[in-house]
Amino acid sequence: MTTPPLQDTSIYERRESSVRSYCRAFPTVFTKATGATMTDASGREYIDFLAGCSSLNYGHNDPDMKAALVDHITADGVAHGLDMHTDAKSGFLATFERLILQPRGMDHRMMFVGPTGANAVEAVEAALKLARKATGRTNVIAFTTGFHGMTLGALAATGNLYNRGGAGQQLTGITRMPFEGALGPDIDTAEVMAKLLDEPSSGIEPPAAIILETVQGEGGLNPASNAWVKRVAEIARDKGALLIIDDIQAGIGRSGTFFSFDEMGIEPDIITMAKSLSGFGLPFAAVLVRPKYDVFKPAEHNGTFRGNNHAFERLTKISKLVPGSRLKGRGMFRGVDVGSGELASKICAQAFEDGLIIETSGSRGQVVKVLAPLTIDADTFARGLDIVEKAVTKVVKPQEVVAV
Amino acid sequence: MTTPPLQDTSIYERRESSVRSYCRAFPTVFTKATGATMTDASGREYIDFLAGCSSLNYGHNDPDMKAALVDHITADGVAHGLDMHTDAKSGFLATFERLILQPRGMDHRMMFVGPTGANAVEAVEAALKLARKATGRTNVIAFTTGFHGMTLGALAATGNLYNRGGAGQQLTGITRMPFEGALGPDIDTAEVMAKLLDEPSSGIEPPAAIILETVQGEGGLNPASNAWVKRVAEIARDKGALLIIDDIQAGIGRSGTFFSFDEMGIEPDIITMAKSLSGFGLPFAAVLVRPKYDVFKPAEHNGTFRGNNHAFERLTKISKLVPGSRLKGRGMFRGVDVGSGELASKICAQAFEDGLIIETSGSRGQVVKVLAPLTIDADTFARGLDIVEKAVTKVVKPQEVVAV
Amino acid sequence: MTTPPLQDTSIYERRESSVRSYCRAFPTVFTKATGATMTDASGREYIDFLAGCSSLNYGHNDPDMKAALVDHITADGVAHGLDMHTDAKSGFLATFERLILQPRGMDHRMMFVGPTGANAVEAVEAALKLARKATGRTNVIAFTTGFHGMTLGALAATGNLYNRGGAGQQLTGITRMPFEGALGPDIDTAEVMAKLLDEPSSGIEPPAAIILETVQGEGGLNPASNAWVKRVAEIARDKGALLIIDDIQAGIGRSGTFFSFDEMGIEPDIITMAKSLSGFGLPFAAVLVRPKYDVFKPAEHNGTFRGNNHAFERLTKISKLVPGSRLKGRGMFRGVDVGSGELASKICAQAFEDGLIIETSGSRGQVVKVLAPLTIDADTFARGLDIVEKAVTKVVKPQEVVAV
Amino acid sequence: MTTPPLQDTSIYERRESSVRSYCRAFPTVFTKATGATMTDASGREYIDFLAGCSSLNYGHNDPDMKAALVDHITADGVAHGLDMHTDAKSGFLATFERLILQPRGMDHRMMFVGPTGANAVEAVEAALKLARKATGRTNVIAFTTGFHGMTLGALAATGNLYNRGGAGQQLTGITRMPFEGALGPDIDTAEVMAKLLDEPSSGIEPPAAIILETVQGEGGLNPASNAWVKRVAEIARDKGALLIIDDIQAGIGRSGTFFSFDEMGIEPDIITMAKSLSGFGLPFAAVLVRPKYDVFKPAEHNGTFRGNNHAFERLTKISKLVPGSRLKGRGMFRGVDVGSGELASKICAQAFEDGLIIETSGSRGQVVKVLAPLTIDADTFARGLDIVEKAVTKVVKPQEVVAV
Repeated sequence: MTTPPLQDTSIYERRESSVRSYCRAFPTVFTKATGATMTDASGREYIDFLAGCSSLNYGHNDPDMKAALVDHITADGVAHGLDMHTDAKSGFLATFERLILQPRGMDHRMMFVGPTGANAVEAVEAALKLARKATGRTNVIAFTTGFHGMTLGALAATGNLYNRGGAGQQLTGITRMPFEGALGPDIDTAEVMAKLLDEPSSGIEPPAAIILETVQGEGGLNPASNAWVKRVAEIARDKGALLIIDDIQAGIGRSGTFFSFDEMGIEPDIITMAKSLSGFGLPFAAVLVRPKYDVFKPAEHNGTFRGNNHAFERLTKISKLVPGSRLKGRGMFRGVDVGSGELASKICAQAFEDGLIIETSGSRGQVVKVLAPLTIDADTFARGLDIVEKAVTKVVKPQEVVAV
Repeated sequence: MTTPPLQDTSIYERRESSVRSYCRAFPTVFTKATGATMTDASGREYIDFLAGCSSLNYGHNDPDMKAALVDHITADGVAHGLDMHTDAKSGFLATFERLILQPRGMDHRMMFVGPTGANAVEAVEAALKLARKATGRTNVIAFTTGFHGMTLGALAATGNLYNRGGAGQQLTGITRMPFEGALGPDIDTAEVMAKLLDEPSSGIEPPAAIILETVQGEGGLNPASNAWVKRVAEIARDKGALLIIDDIQAGIGRSGTFFSFDEMGIEPDIITMAKSLSGFGLPFAAVLVRPKYDVFKPAEHNGTFRGNNHAFERLTKISKLVPGSRLKGRGMFRGVDVGSGELASKICAQAFEDGLIIETSGSRGQVVKVLAPLTIDADTFARGLDIVEKAVTKVVKPQEVVAV
Repeated sequence: MTTPPLQDTSIYERRESSVRSYCRAFPTVFTKATGATMTDASGREYIDFLAGCSSLNYGHNDPDMKAALVDHITADGVAHGLDMHTDAKSGFLATFERLILQPRGMDHRMMFVGPTGANAVEAVEAALKLARKATGRTNVIAFTTGFHGMTLGALAATGNLYNRGGAGQQLTGITRMPFEGALGPDIDTAEVMAKLLDEPSSGIEPPAAIILETVQGEGGLNPASNAWVKRVAEIARDKGALLIIDDIQAGIGRSGTFFSFDEMGIEPDIITMAKSLSGFGLPFAAVLVRPKYDVFKPAEHNGTFRGNNHAFERLTKISKLVPGSRLKGRGMFRGVDVGSGELASKICAQAFEDGLIIETSGSRGQVVKVLAPLTIDADTFARGLDIVEKAVTKVVKPQEVVAV
Repeated sequence: MTTPPLQDTSIYERRESSVRSYCRAFPTVFTKATGATMTDASGREYIDFLAGCSSLNYGHNDPDMKAALVDHITADGVAHGLDMHTDAKSGFLATFERLILQPRGMDHRMMFVGPTGANAVEAVEAALKLARKATGRTNVIAFTTGFHGMTLGALAATGNLYNRGGAGQQLTGITRMPFEGALGPDIDTAEVMAKLLDEPSSGIEPPAAIILETVQGEGGLNPASNAWVKRVAEIARDKGALLIIDDIQAGIGRSGTFFSFDEMGIEPDIITMAKSLSGFGLPFAAVLVRPKYDVFKPAEHNGTFRGNNHAFERLTKISKLVPGSRLKGRGMFRGVDVGSGELASKICAQAFEDGLIIETSGSRGQVVKVLAPLTIDADTFARGLDIVEKAVTKVVKPQEVVAV
């Protein structure tokens, strides 16, 4: 009995559900990955601007982590210990306390979700449950174009109608509010929310929580301003609602600081973390919770990853190639809104042909999203951006470019 | 900066959420694990009759798997590739097709759930969504004492009221039916269900699916008979409902065959798999789905793990020490219902003192559950059962024993 | 401008919604009605075995009530006073207390539902809300083939799938249990319910209330036995659930006593009343509620309407004309289950041709339902039954009759 | 056995549920009512500015209607005929077609709701169900401060949190949007809605219908502008949603035209009618539905009741007595927002002492609501307004008045 040749993908046609998606955009078989580079079975190398959708902020197979992991396995370390105490877990908690929580004056405790703390979406479900239990209220406020996962409770909080359509039943317990900018530049949507929550006949039940991403990832790299987030936090406090920051995609350095909200002057009651929390691509998720919900302490800040702002001058340049396009995002969580999903798709497909893994986001798929590992070296990053620029030039119709 | 001494557990008090549970029953810090043995920081060894709640059917750090894993990591194999094609995934699918699906004549396809296929509960949520989409119906039938997970959609299907109470909102879309035996020995609960579904004014919407475990794990190791499961499958077919077997805990050999239903003469439309699917304790979950739902093919059977029936004669003997107790379960998925959660708890606590990791299940926690790795050697297994027997003898009041 | 000739029904085709139903079964224009007789525009008389679906238990235009009503109107009595005090209302409450509540030792208070107490279904909605508020629980137990109305909350409690299909959204908050006999003669469905509610992992939330009709009207004239109702009442009390008797159709004498449960030895916490509560056909509904829910007092009985059992010997005879048919119901709330909705329909259509207004019930429309006014005189009643008998003879195929 | 003296209200304390409300504000026993005057048991007369909450737009016991009603009863006319054809119903439909529908070019059909067409709230429930069936969608858009009734489906559409709190379960299937003015004078809430419905990741499911009152009654007499209602109608059409005008309180002449929307240039798909539809205070409700939903015909207008604008100059004057107060409403559906519920309450209580029945509305009960019969004579109307003015003067603190 022989295994199939590496590049034969017929087994996927035959035996993998048609729900598969990324492999359609990147139709090759990968065999190796280091840092910001993935290699396929033919030996061809690709620069990775996807980074496991922000699960690989430190790149593939980081040498230090790799060595530590091999040591752990070789020494018969505990691979799966439910939530029993292990030396590895003690070490993680102690280090997280010392490096992350204490410098910020955060008294939060960590809840590893599910029996093994494996899954991002369970972090969101746990956060919603916790807020509902803590307040005795059911309603949770979530925002337009927000994305919080695909299990039933999290899906109710997710805005995308295509995703929601998969539920097969009514999604309840969520009131939708417009995210910053959703009603145009002249309307302050935090004040819209405040007005609606102030009206006793609004028909909107008092909220258990307000859940938000400070930079919406799937929604199209929409960064909320500090002022807006602070106002939302204030409204939550006034209304007795917990503030949940869903930092699964924007956190762990992706948006420029360890937590995406580090420099916003807020102290969320609950923070969901996953994706790059493990750092190596292994599933790992957690929820941070304040022991008490009624004390506000000054947050201390600890900038870690500043992004490569110089390089983003390149993104500005690329953006100018597409009439009407806009820069989106923050930190290393950036992209270009090219106005249409079709165009963004063509650019990403062209980039893949030229050796770059990159995908789109946004409610119409209209944003070309740069999610390189935070650890990417300057040269590789520049080469990746070169490929994007070239792809844009190839795809955008010459006359449109001229039109700029 | 020093890490805490290995046996200092104060970091857990300080920084882990009070939701933690197993570590309270087994209050030590584990540092190493091989096969059916776990070792704590003081060097003490424990026999493991918990096996990561059936996630470690092949034991801890199986040498072959360990070697393969270290090779993969050392070679910079892809650790996290979203759902892109990788050589590892191609190999897994081809092997699964050859060893599992083809011998059974199964045409199912595999859906890896979530972006990374990480999580058991997403398998259940995906199965429920899929059935609802496929049928255009919302209602799903689940059984009393069933357990299907803790996210909102899966929790609705879960019977346990303590778990359900955590939802903080109404759980909808599920109709509950009595599991085999739930109405006493004289009432055939499959026929009860058939009668209710036949009645046009029953108030029970036509079901999208019937979801069940062939051996209920958390519900107290309740095995359904072949006849009952076949009748349920027949009713599902008659009513246009998909049959979902939730094989997350009972499958992958745990109950005596690879799939828990291998010898039942049914062909489920959807099968959820997780836990020991990875074999090493890493999170890995999948859903098997029939490409079409209307064709019934003869299932072929492939017994793999027969359990150690000899050893279970020991369990029978142990059971006789507790008046009124009953043997439960099937394959290597067995236990003793000792009649009260308090008693079962005491037995497990005593066993832990004597070096055995073992826990309870059942709606009142009344079942002492033996979930040893399937690969456990006969001697270790016997020693573990000795500890259980001794614990029972210590805990059960002498006069009660005499009373037998 | 002229009004249309009385027998021209084209205005209905043109301007009444296609939702209209009774007028299709009885296609004539009625102009007059007294006692058990309705007269159409051509002067033809019909015996009324429908009695406004039990809204006219005292017949059409009862002379005493008619006189009192004309006096009230003529004297400019208050026709619509919201829930302000009026002399008419004071009189009603005082009389109801004296004749109904005091002789039964009932301490219940009356809630007039909606601003005007007009509508039956609001009584059910009010009862459900009240039970949920009183217990802080959401789940309500209702029975198969039960009918409780068509607004969203009441519809969730209604069993009929055709009716439920009209909701256009998920119906929640109800757990369905089998009514007496629903699982065949050998299974005591009250014990089935008790077992399910005793199981902590049943997945059935603790109920706020159990709602039932002691004789199911729309469900096919299914009378529950005293023993079964008493056991249900006992289970409700044990589980901290309120007992709601929906007496809208079966009460006010229809099933032989004023309340349908008068001789059952139970004291419901909530009773819904409507239909014949007004007696004249004007909409009027109310809910009776016990001031406290935890005190059980011996009920005193007050038989009022005994039905005409002699006449029902006729129904037995009629039933013998249809092979396999069964007598259904209690008091003046009786019928014959002829086994198929098609047959029952034909019998009613034939009866209408012969001058009798009578309709079907049951989940398949299989029951020919006799709902004559309680005040019908013996001769008219006999003539109505003659028409039923003749219709049955005409409709049932001769060979089938021979087959008996 | 004697009936209690007319003015003894102890029977209410003893036997009526504590849910009663109007009788607490107007603590006397009424015995007679004609036109805009109610008389209590002591013979004292009160002017009625409540008019059965708009159920008595033609006043109490209108002589013509009264005579017709007595004739009908005396002639043994059909009082309750389910939905069978009767001469009375034929006459009503033909007259409604001739006087209301044909002059407006409306092709709508009438659905009498419930078995008897008795109840307002069933009209709303029927309208919601119908829209959901017609579109195959579940979501319905309703507005802040809207009131649509108290049964479960209608309550979900109602904004008032006090009312909603009575549900005892989650209210689902409704998305709330801000009514005109709810976000302040500078934000066009119709455009807010349009923006949110245009965004594919808004998390707001495509609506089956948009339901609104053109003048919100319970919400505080808030009239929507023609432009806003037209824009809402346009958005409904663009999004494939039905437009439902809930005209239960604002219709039948109350707001100045027969339908409240007669002069707005819209053609609603569904119109709910109740309250003054009967005219005499008897419960009577209906839904008007367009046979097809995709044809827009020019509406013709037919002004009927113009209100007494001269008299409302008085309301303006009264309003000036309360600093910061505002005039609200339209037609004979007007009031004064006095800024606080406490103040409004005191004014109404004082007015009752002086012989006027009048109540409050608004989400904080802050609006003194003038709902006189449309047929009230000028003198009585003026006397009623005198009482309001005097009550305001007495209640408002002198210094506040001076402050104006």
